Amino acid sequence: MLRENKPRRSGGRRRAQSDAAKPVRTTDYVNLRHPFQPQTVFSDDEIANIHNTALRVIEELGIKVLLPEARNTFQKAGARVEDEMVYAGRDIVTAALQTAPASIRLRAANPKRALNYENGAMLFMAGAGCPNATDLNRGRRAGDLEAYVETLKLAQTYDVIHMLGPCVEPQDVPIQFRHYEMMRAQLTHCDKPMFVYSRGSEQVSDSFEMIRLALNLSMDDFTDGVWATTVINSNSPRMLDIPMAQGLIDFAAAGQMSIITPFCLAGAMAPITVAGALTLQHAEALTGITLAQLTRAGAPISYGGFSSNVDMKSGSPAFGTPEHIKMQIGAGQLARHIGLPWRSATGAASNAADMQAANETNMAIWGGAMANATLTVHAAGWLEGGLSFGYEKFINDVEALQTMAELCVKPVGSDAEIGFDALAEVDPGGHFFATQHTMDRYQSAFYAPLVSDLTNLGAWTEAGAKTSTQRATDIWTQNLAEFKDPEHGASAASNIEAFVETRRQQGGAFPQE
Amino acid sequence: MLRENKPRRSGGRRRAQSDAAKPVRTTDYVNLRHPFQPQTVFSDDEIANIHNTALRVIEELGIKVLLPEARNTFQKAGARVEDEMVYAGRDIVTAALQTAPASIRLRAANPKRALNYENGAMLFMAGAGCPNATDLNRGRRAGDLEAYVETLKLAQTYDVIHMLGPCVEPQDVPIQFRHYEMMRAQLTHCDKPMFVYSRGSEQVSDSFEMIRLALNLSMDDFTDGVWATTVINSNSPRMLDIPMAQGLIDFAAAGQMSIITPFCLAGAMAPITVAGALTLQHAEALTGITLAQLTRAGAPISYGGFSSNVDMKSGSPAFGTPEHIKMQIGAGQLARHIGLPWRSATGAASNAADMQAANETNMAIWGGAMANATLTVHAAGWLEGGLSFGYEKFINDVEALQTMAELCVKPVGSDAEIGFDALAEVDPGGHFFATQHTMDRYQSAFYAPLVSDLTNLGAWTEAGAKTSTQRATDIWTQNLAEFKDPEHGASAASNIEAFVETRRQQGGAFPQE
Repeated sequence: MLRENKPRRSGGRRRAQSDAAKPVRTTDYVNLRHPFQPQTVFSDDEIANIHNTALRVIEELGIKVLLPEARNTFQKAGARVEDEMVYAGRDIVTAALQTAPASIRLRAANPKRALNYENGAMLFMAGAGCPNATDLNRGRRAGDLEAYVETLKLAQTYDVIHMLGPCVEPQDVPIQFRHYEMMRAQLTHCDKPMFVYSRGSEQVSDSFEMIRLALNLSMDDFTDGVWATTVINSNSPRMLDIPMAQGLIDFAAAGQMSIITPFCLAGAMAPITVAGALTLQHAEALTGITLAQLTRAGAPISYGGFSSNVDMKSGSPAFGTPEHIKMQIGAGQLARHIGLPWRSATGAASNAADMQAANETNMAIWGGAMANATLTVHAAGWLEGGLSFGYEKFINDVEALQTMAELCVKPVGSDAEIGFDALAEVDPGGHFFATQHTMDRYQSAFYAPLVSDLTNLGAWTEAGAKTSTQRATDIWTQNLAEFKDPEHGASAASNIEAFVETRRQQGGAFPQE
Repeated sequence: MLRENKPRRSGGRRRAQSDAAKPVRTTDYVNLRHPFQPQTVFSDDEIANIHNTALRVIEELGIKVLLPEARNTFQKAGARVEDEMVYAGRDIVTAALQTAPASIRLRAANPKRALNYENGAMLFMAGAGCPNATDLNRGRRAGDLEAYVETLKLAQTYDVIHMLGPCVEPQDVPIQFRHYEMMRAQLTHCDKPMFVYSRGSEQVSDSFEMIRLALNLSMDDFTDGVWATTVINSNSPRMLDIPMAQGLIDFAAAGQMSIITPFCLAGAMAPITVAGALTLQHAEALTGITLAQLTRAGAPISYGGFSSNVDMKSGSPAFGTPEHIKMQIGAGQLARHIGLPWRSATGAASNAADMQAANETNMAIWGGAMANATLTVHAAGWLEGGLSFGYEKFINDVEALQTMAELCVKPVGSDAEIGFDALAEVDPGGHFFATQHTMDRYQSAFYAPLVSDLTNLGAWTEAGAKTSTQRATDIWTQNLAEFKDPEHGASAASNIEAFVETRRQQGGAFPQE
């Protein structure tokens, strides 16, 4: 009975400082707070200008909303609606911003994995939505259920991945049954906050019901907590399609969280400037936030953006570029301007898990840190601009994320930590290996790398001269071989079995279009 | 006559904003200022504690100074000297800090390459001091003059590399003649601020004379400007050897810049804690600064540190780790505490130009940004913890540095940049490719990548499925094939010829030991 677990603080991994005899690393990867001050690229006036222009976009240029129910909702709130266009006045948007919560508690099968989704928190989600999977053992192939489950298990394995996401699309499962298998895998193999695709009301309500059944939640239990998150992509510029609008409504009505994510590629679906792309992103995000709040005031909703630029030669999206980072930082300013938590994204256009891929992803991980993004999506494993999830890239990216996580713990500058006595004990030109100060701390003083190899060229060559991409293969295969379902997994699986069987016999649920 | 060049501001590459018909990127890579606020890992009290403990180390524990002349200098200033140990009181150190300049103008053969070495500036030097060179065409080999010259030319090629350094050690040149060839190459192929090794007074004065002759500087011209920089590594813990102390004295006496760089590896030659390693670094750096100022008050001197941790399993140095970054940020706090410009360093322990190498280097590049390091050394090309300079890694690192450089230019949030008219012009679901707003800007809106390949998998595969490391080979070979000596190169070469010939006939100059 999962709900009976005593809800301990996730800081449980933290040990008392006095336990100095056998120190362990004290970093609590589950509850990270940003270590750096949020930075700015725009002045306060410029941010106000972008915000006000976005309001003008909504009210004067309008947003095309394809779902009649959503247009009705706007109209009832006083917006002007003409055909499929919605023109919502700034009073409506501003009122919605006042009811959107600044802090959202994300529930998880394991209470220790629950998260505060709020400004200041630093959360990561693995690369999501990839139609293909690639690894050095099996090569690149279309995403299937096996890859979906494997990548979910990898995301579950590392504490620095905070929320589950659909890393790989399981295309071998018929579309009307796919959500059953995606939810089953999350519910049985994982215990972190879950992801549900917004592909129509029927699939969404099936997914909610599976969570409820698997975790023994009453209807009230479920709607009183945020157990599921979805990502809502607007169709930039200025359009909200049917499944996305429906998802926003359904999630808001059920008290579950939508992350509004316009995908504004400057120069293509968005203006070519950082300020212009962000204005469009902001207008679309505000529209989504407003629809959610009009559906249910106080509905958990995340501001968000995934704005970057395209390569003007090929039209391909680019990631980790200076423009991407500036948009991340600007988006953070806009999120703080409206007082909401928000998601950013890293990414990699590289077709291989190489230095380009690392540089792209790392740059935007740091961009998210400079922007104090609440959640950074695609933080590990993304390749080919999201067309492929790379297992080896995932492992190497986790190393970068763990490094960021370790930065959340500040060093101490006390007399004991400085160790004047140790300095006095070692002669000029000597070494500190044997000092008491070192002996007391050597087991836990430093972050232990995951895939980085610190041996010298000779030892490395003897071990096969493997790149970090090649070494990562051993790590993920070992992760999968040693993977154990969480305690609640077996009961969750049996709790949902009858429901899924019935729904399958009824023909499942096709996506809404 | 180089000195007759009208000293233009290096901002010469910047074009007027009104030149909108054919916009070009306006980033001036030569004069970068840090775009991010300096961050902190220690409280002000902790920084004061580290500073004061470092003063105690100098005054109570003492520093072993192997050069008699240096000990005499300290003794004359009132320090207690016992055998080879120097115990300098905090009054001596504090007085020295008051005469050390906060801003240093680094001169260059090309006045447009001159630099302000001061807090707020963001400068990069390529990987330095590598005994080996490696590239995909020729493999790994012992550093020779060819590799030294080639890597110098690569450093000269990219504006984001601000200061020259000895990327590769030319071991095929006999040690007593080596400095002639190193200076000749810098003076004829390059026009950026130069580097001189501190390997004894004779080599140093030869090198200074070559600069003077090559650039037609009078004795006063030379000593009135900073034309040469050296790096002074203390022998941690608490020791200053003969060539390093001599170098400090010689550079200070000639008004040239020393960068004091204790190499404090926490857990090995330094205490295992961030605070402890920084305390030792600080004590050693303060000692060097003091010796320089006692030699000549106002001598140009840079605070510095290259502190990281060792891998406690192998004892190997690690780079880009959380501890490295924390030490960078702490070092920045200490530099600002004493009001001096300073150098930091990135690095990579990786034995290949792979994701590990990119992650390590990138992390510490960002660490330097968070710390607002004046100069970040080893910023491109370092591999194997400095045992090898990788040509392909250099190119990939330059991409990262150029990305950082682009971040120095903030986007504009004006009405024109936001482009409300462009937003109005494009229908929902449309695109911005053809708007006037895009057409006006598309040539210059985005950073154009150096080695990143943004094509899709099909095009990339057709082009040979090359990793960014493999693609970099074409770039550096092209750079070298197209390389042109700067204008003054030919006259510089002829200006030094007789001097070098004479000195060679005299037997050259062996290093001081």
